[in-house]
Amino acid sequence: MEPIRAEEGWFVLHAFYQVDRRLWAELPSSRQLECRENLEELLRNFRLGENCQANCYAVLGHKADFGIMFVDPELHHLNEVENRIFRCFEPGAVRPVYSFFSLSEVSEYMTQEKDYDRTLREKEGLAPESPEYQTKMESYRERMRFYINERLYPQLPEHRVMCFYPMNKTRSGEYNWYSLDFDTRKKLMSGHLITGRKFAGKVKQLVTGGVGLDEWEWGVTLFADDPFYLKKVVYDMRFDEVSARYAGFGDFLVGIRLDPAGLFERLQL
Amino acid sequence: MEPIRAEEGWFVLHAFYQVDRRLWAELPSSRQLECRENLEELLRNFRLGENCQANCYAVLGHKADFGIMFVDPELHHLNEVENRIFRCFEPGAVRPVYSFFSLSEVSEYMTQEKDYDRTLREKEGLAPESPEYQTKMESYRERMRFYINERLYPQLPEHRVMCFYPMNKTRSGEYNWYSLDFDTRKKLMSGHLITGRKFAGKVKQLVTGGVGLDEWEWGVTLFADDPFYLKKVVYDMRFDEVSARYAGFGDFLVGIRLDPAGLFERLQL
Amino acid sequence: MEPIRAEEGWFVLHAFYQVDRRLWAELPSSRQLECRENLEELLRNFRLGENCQANCYAVLGHKADFGIMFVDPELHHLNEVENRIFRCFEPGAVRPVYSFFSLSEVSEYMTQEKDYDRTLREKEGLAPESPEYQTKMESYRERMRFYINERLYPQLPEHRVMCFYPMNKTRSGEYNWYSLDFDTRKKLMSGHLITGRKFAGKVKQLVTGGVGLDEWEWGVTLFADDPFYLKKVVYDMRFDEVSARYAGFGDFLVGIRLDPAGLFERLQL
Amino acid sequence: MEPIRAEEGWFVLHAFYQVDRRLWAELPSSRQLECRENLEELLRNFRLGENCQANCYAVLGHKADFGIMFVDPELHHLNEVENRIFRCFEPGAVRPVYSFFSLSEVSEYMTQEKDYDRTLREKEGLAPESPEYQTKMESYRERMRFYINERLYPQLPEHRVMCFYPMNKTRSGEYNWYSLDFDTRKKLMSGHLITGRKFAGKVKQLVTGGVGLDEWEWGVTLFADDPFYLKKVVYDMRFDEVSARYAGFGDFLVGIRLDPAGLFERLQL
Amino acid sequence: MEPIRAEEGWFVLHAFYQVDRRLWAELPSSRQLECRENLEELLRNFRLGENCQANCYAVLGHKADFGIMFVDPELHHLNEVENRIFRCFEPGAVRPVYSFFSLSEVSEYMTQEKDYDRTLREKEGLAPESPEYQTKMESYRERMRFYINERLYPQLPEHRVMCFYPMNKTRSGEYNWYSLDFDTRKKLMSGHLITGRKFAGKVKQLVTGGVGLDEWEWGVTLFADDPFYLKKVVYDMRFDEVSARYAGFGDFLVGIRLDPAGLFERLQL
Repeated sequence: MEPIRAEEGWFVLHAFYQVDRRLWAELPSSRQLECRENLEELLRNFRLGENCQANCYAVLGHKADFGIMFVDPELHHLNEVENRIFRCFEPGAVRPVYSFFSLSEVSEYMTQEKDYDRTLREKEGLAPESPEYQTKMESYRERMRFYINERLYPQLPEHRVMCFYPMNKTRSGEYNWYSLDFDTRKKLMSGHLITGRKFAGKVKQLVTGGVGLDEWEWGVTLFADDPFYLKKVVYDMRFDEVSARYAGFGDFLVGIRLDPAGLFERLQL
Repeated sequence: MEPIRAEEGWFVLHAFYQVDRRLWAELPSSRQLECRENLEELLRNFRLGENCQANCYAVLGHKADFGIMFVDPELHHLNEVENRIFRCFEPGAVRPVYSFFSLSEVSEYMTQEKDYDRTLREKEGLAPESPEYQTKMESYRERMRFYINERLYPQLPEHRVMCFYPMNKTRSGEYNWYSLDFDTRKKLMSGHLITGRKFAGKVKQLVTGGVGLDEWEWGVTLFADDPFYLKKVVYDMRFDEVSARYAGFGDFLVGIRLDPAGLFERLQL
Repeated sequence: MEPIRAEEGWFVLHAFYQVDRRLWAELPSSRQLECRENLEELLRNFRLGENCQANCYAVLGHKADFGIMFVDPELHHLNEVENRIFRCFEPGAVRPVYSFFSLSEVSEYMTQEKDYDRTLREKEGLAPESPEYQTKMESYRERMRFYINERLYPQLPEHRVMCFYPMNKTRSGEYNWYSLDFDTRKKLMSGHLITGRKFAGKVKQLVTGGVGLDEWEWGVTLFADDPFYLKKVVYDMRFDEVSARYAGFGDFLVGIRLDPAGLFERLQL
Repeated sequence: MEPIRAEEGWFVLHAFYQVDRRLWAELPSSRQLECRENLEELLRNFRLGENCQANCYAVLGHKADFGIMFVDPELHHLNEVENRIFRCFEPGAVRPVYSFFSLSEVSEYMTQEKDYDRTLREKEGLAPESPEYQTKMESYRERMRFYINERLYPQLPEHRVMCFYPMNKTRSGEYNWYSLDFDTRKKLMSGHLITGRKFAGKVKQLVTGGVGLDEWEWGVTLFADDPFYLKKVVYDMRFDEVSARYAGFGDFLVGIRLDPAGLFERLQL
Repeated sequence: MEPIRAEEGWFVLHAFYQVDRRLWAELPSSRQLECRENLEELLRNFRLGENCQANCYAVLGHKADFGIMFVDPELHHLNEVENRIFRCFEPGAVRPVYSFFSLSEVSEYMTQEKDYDRTLREKEGLAPESPEYQTKMESYRERMRFYINERLYPQLPEHRVMCFYPMNKTRSGEYNWYSLDFDTRKKLMSGHLITGRKFAGKVKQLVTGGVGLDEWEWGVTLFADDPFYLKKVVYDMRFDEVSARYAGFGDFLVGIRLDPAGLFERLQL
């Protein structure tokens, strides 16, 4: 089958599951063990796919028992693995409860080369031919390549805790994001960026695009080692005008990263 | 039984299903094979009906396992096939999860012959008797026939990916679509058209009418080979005033087109 | 038990059902046949009740498999039949999915005799003693009797397709129906009436009151032979100010009228 | 266990249930009979508790099969009976579908003695020492005692039909009930009172407080012999400014009062 | 496994459950007894964890049968106990119905030392070197330590009744909490504090932070011996501007505190 790739970005699927504990308990322990091995093998094989990634999380509270975050540059392969998850387990023992399908993307509000060129020339008074200009511009390009790379080709980090939530920009009455001009939107977004930077080293953020693919316009995944910072970064950002006025949020799902064996133990499977 | 046809347009049903994987796994593989053959035969026979069409899609994420998009000019026949779907499978093995029932329609905002006549006479200064007027008018009529044909009598395309979402025009406060006069609405819609044209060749769009038939006023089906363009076209259109101010969206369901055999394989059935 | 009748109007119940196809398939065909005969007999007996009516519909899409619209002037009798429906079938084989309970009613905005009297005297200059006045007034009273009769004592029509939807009048901000005075409301409603009349012969409409009885203030049932007109009448009415500004709509359920035997065949039961 | 009583008011629980008709049908008729006797005995014993009351209702439509309205001055006892209901029946045969937990209360807007004193003195010119003043004041006190008694210590009436709905006062934008001063709220509520009085003898109303106890701020229970008046009182009240501007309503559940034996017969159990 | 602790605060989980009464009834009474002992042992062991706390509540009405409120400074331990709850019971006999995951926190609006210093110097005219200043400041610090301690390191109280509800601050139109400056927010919150103090001794309140962790920004748990005060405190607070204008509430769940044995008896298990 011909591969389905995106002109830009990789496919991301956040998939959350609940275990039918009754059905599970009826299985002989040998079958339970086999299921665990199936999941381990499925994810191991999946990760052999080029740039394919999958992280497992035990979810806090009653929204789900566990979740898997998949990254895959090819859509058939991703659709296959999400179907195979159910086959790892005794059929019916794992039920889907929530998912978000999105595509990694670069923010359209990131600084453009032409903007930086103007900054260097007009604000810093550097001639494009000067070595200083060229050094700075090369360093800028390096940062941008790194940023674009991180956003378009994300590598799932090892942090111990993950928080996923979907969001929209509002389109109601006076506060209609989509009626603002580009520069206003860019300025609003830059306030958000500043708040985000305060949490560098504490919280890693991945924003993927769900417009046209799922119910919300963006999916936000936060990674941290201490959940206190999940709370703090989202709370602090809520006061940024771009959130206060223009953001709508879905539910928040928080999970602890575990490998399949650890997950089975945690869920008492 | 006397056929039920619409004075204008064909009936369209988007039907989404989930598989009871436990029940399915309990079937002997001969019965599983039989189910697949049943579905293949049902759809093959259905397509023998005049202008009857049906495309199958494996759905991404947890909203459904698969969907079928039916087009049928006769309502009893459509109602029959949607009931027979369940009989192809072991009873209970396939559960309905979402559907949208609509009727193909022509946009009331498309250019009218009298508008084009005025354009030719007043803007281009052509006399109705002139050969140039007649050539242009004939070509216009040809385009309109093609457009009307495409909208009223849609042919489901072969694109690899499909995105369905229902939508409404808002009726809240200041931004009440149904309180605008026709010319304002037509002008707003034309902005949308221009955005849509940028995706010609990348995304094919079918808008069908659900007013009086289902929960949302319209159903939008987008067809593409690369999901990146599903995201891009919906995102770009969101900035058109007609969307920014006057559109409400339901959930988005994205699927990969597969024939029944491919679908069964994909779903691990 | 003492009958429960309404001082004005008959009770109306729209009841929608889904079939448990697994449970059904497990029944021997003799039992399936018996269920069909039970339903036929139940409805036949129900219709023996004075003015009791019941129409069956196969529903399009996944919201329900079928629906029954009951009209009954006595509440114990109606409550009995809705409970007996479940007993016609193998217990559990038919599940309730949606219902709307309402009471037939006359619109408070219909022309009053005193208004028509004034029209005849002031606008047409007729003396109440004149034969012309008396003929016209008698004809007016005849029309009103017919209208009131149709609304308070509805006879379910034979049309092939039915559309049911519940609605409210809005009470939000500037557009608060219940803060308008009677004359403004009457004027707004009359615009609606004019749109409705354009569909005379194509669409028959029954509006029943759900205030204090169910979740929405009114239930609207449209009957037509061609679903195109269901779409057209609801779409055209949406531009009436009374809908554009003051109406909130629930879900729309569309069904094809079939007798019990036809219904069983359609649903593959 | 130490009793849990409220400093003011009795506990009220509206509990609605659905029957698993499949499970029920599998029971031998002797067991079905036993369940009916269990329910009869449970309610009989419950009513032996001081001021404990329980009315059963067969519900119209698909929201529930039946409901029980409990009144109990002690919370452990109420919590016990709601748990014992499930034990009357074959386990699993009766499923909870909706409930509302509230506490009877006196409206804070009722006339105060000091207001009535002023009326007598200033409007009617009576001296507090005059026999007329004293007669009127005593009669006022009698009415208030009666009213307070009825609200705080409600006796469930015998009416044949019951309607329950929860409601809130709105807190949105311009129409924010909780930002109004007491006198404005009192004046708005008095308009409601006048509408209510028109239905004296037709509809009996009980308003209980759900703030801090359940999802809505108040639960309204209407009792009538003719459902027409349920519709009429709620419709008429909707035009009172206090409803038009400041009320939000939940779903409406309507039931016919039956004793347990009648209920079992009605539900075909 | 390396512990997951929060830089500030303890983890709090409100978990609500429903019992599958059918499955339960099928168990031999020895197994039922064993389940009760399992729960007793699990909670006993859980409480051995440093600062780990767990209170059980029988819930009023149909939202849940019972709930457990967990406090735990370490996240793996909390995630383990919530999974082990299901294993205490026969698998499937207890189903999760609702949960809220949050982190204890200090209000950012509490008086700061620098504010109190200014009060003492400017309003009371005390010199920082004066013994009076130092006594008062030490007493202030003591109160703050106590308050911070109570909020960050909560000890679940013994009150007989508990009420949990989640809440948000609104971000709509004119009344956007997150667009207010700090001083305005602090002033609004102080009004709330004054209302709360009136219920000292009657109602104990614990507010925990859900931002970035669950669907609502805060979880409020009220503890009282008389449910009348749950109603009264929430009602009175609703008139505080901070609630009237800026608060959105979720559902309210009320429970009676019982130990596991009492809970099993209450639920008729």
